[in-house]
Amino acid sequence: MLNASPDARQQLLQTRCLWPQEAPRHSPVQAVVLTSAEVDHVAGLLSMRESQPFVLWGTQRVLGLLQENPIFNALNPAFVERRAFDLDRRTEIVGRDGPLGLAITAFAVPGKVPLFLESRDPANLGGVAEDTIGLEVAAGGKCFHYVPGCARMTPELAARLRGSDLVFFDGTLWTDDELVRLGISEKTGHRMGHMSINGGDAGTLAVFDALDVRRKVFIHVNTTNPVLDEDSPEHAEARAHGWEVAEDGMRISL
Amino acid sequence: MLNASPDARQQLLQTRCLWPQEAPRHSPVQAVVLTSAEVDHVAGLLSMRESQPFVLWGTQRVLGLLQENPIFNALNPAFVERRAFDLDRRTEIVGRDGPLGLAITAFAVPGKVPLFLESRDPANLGGVAEDTIGLEVAAGGKCFHYVPGCARMTPELAARLRGSDLVFFDGTLWTDDELVRLGISEKTGHRMGHMSINGGDAGTLAVFDALDVRRKVFIHVNTTNPVLDEDSPEHAEARAHGWEVAEDGMRISL
Repeated sequence: MLNASPDARQQLLQTRCLWPQEAPRHSPVQAVVLTSAEVDHVAGLLSMRESQPFVLWGTQRVLGLLQENPIFNALNPAFVERRAFDLDRRTEIVGRDGPLGLAITAFAVPGKVPLFLESRDPANLGGVAEDTIGLEVAAGGKCFHYVPGCARMTPELAARLRGSDLVFFDGTLWTDDELVRLGISEKTGHRMGHMSINGGDAGTLAVFDALDVRRKVFIHVNTTNPVLDEDSPEHAEARAHGWEVAEDGMRISL
Repeated sequence: MLNASPDARQQLLQTRCLWPQEAPRHSPVQAVVLTSAEVDHVAGLLSMRESQPFVLWGTQRVLGLLQENPIFNALNPAFVERRAFDLDRRTEIVGRDGPLGLAITAFAVPGKVPLFLESRDPANLGGVAEDTIGLEVAAGGKCFHYVPGCARMTPELAARLRGSDLVFFDGTLWTDDELVRLGISEKTGHRMGHMSINGGDAGTLAVFDALDVRRKVFIHVNTTNPVLDEDSPEHAEARAHGWEVAEDGMRISL
């Protein structure tokens, strides 16, 4: 699992079910790479079996936040090795059985501190560079980009994604005030650290139109987002801009 | 939800699905009562919606362990009030909308510290009195007992359960060496703080035979336990001793 769709728990469970079982409680998960310490990115770790070996990768910042929570000691160091990577440096990913033949390069993305840390430093909800990251994932001469959470497009991020063969990108909300209008929350997308798909010139559809990305897939899509409904005009609009919406069990070959 | 079957996450999700929806993201969960701080009893809290009001009840010990983990600050104090109860004292349970018309009396049960704390005090894996509790739940002149984890039957516990109308009880394992024989773990039931159903004179079937409990239901049943298979001889044996195995969506009227 290279982390972290809307619900990492579900993703873990599905991965286990889709894969051939080699032994009772066998799991194909060799390594986990965290892109954030937000609850929906890390709580799934608590669903791993207690004697399930894998390597847990993250930035120093994200691993440090895990370390502050003793509950994650349920990931026994005898089975789960924690390894940090630096931003902007190519890192060969090692799994429980050794190198996996893939490398990541992590990069800072505009984002937000985890919800559970908001009260610690309310003046800096955007957090530090290592709080929210994207990944360039490379293997066999191919490469794709994975950005499950992004507060806004920057020139640096645009330059990095331009011309990519494949980008998985934050599809949380269709509009910035989606949750407010539905009476579900007082928070806008902006407040939660998510740019919106239909956000005008700064929205995801608009900014990606100029990036020449060959294949674009929305991930981390909130249940309120009408793009999930394949019969909706919003879905049609996203398709018209060349986007797909991720599905369970999706396989993509580059 | 009065906590805590094998997987509290699943239980929460199912509760949400079974109940009528009054509003978007409405939840019927007025209050949660924790019987342990073990991962499978508390991780489900992280699946609650961020603006979901409820009252979170536990012993001082269990609430203190949650407090040590900042990730549970995702349960915003503006929405989730944490309230402690004492052992052996009747406590009226208050939910988000006020008193629920039910009272609990919590009592210590032989158990174990949470997995994530084992390294802190390896000499005392059994923990303190407030680490593992059972509940007597009373409403409308009726009462039942809820004991999802229990390491062994004691004279005090036997006296408390004797003659009960209904007991939900730890059904984790059929035999003490179940996980070891299956090659899944090196841990016995004893090591994990669970007595076994088929444990001879000290097993759950045997000890309850003498307790005159009117209705007996196994909960917290591990996936390896053959009692889950309704066609198994083990299931038949449990039935012959007057036991039922809990099912999703089960409703019981006293």
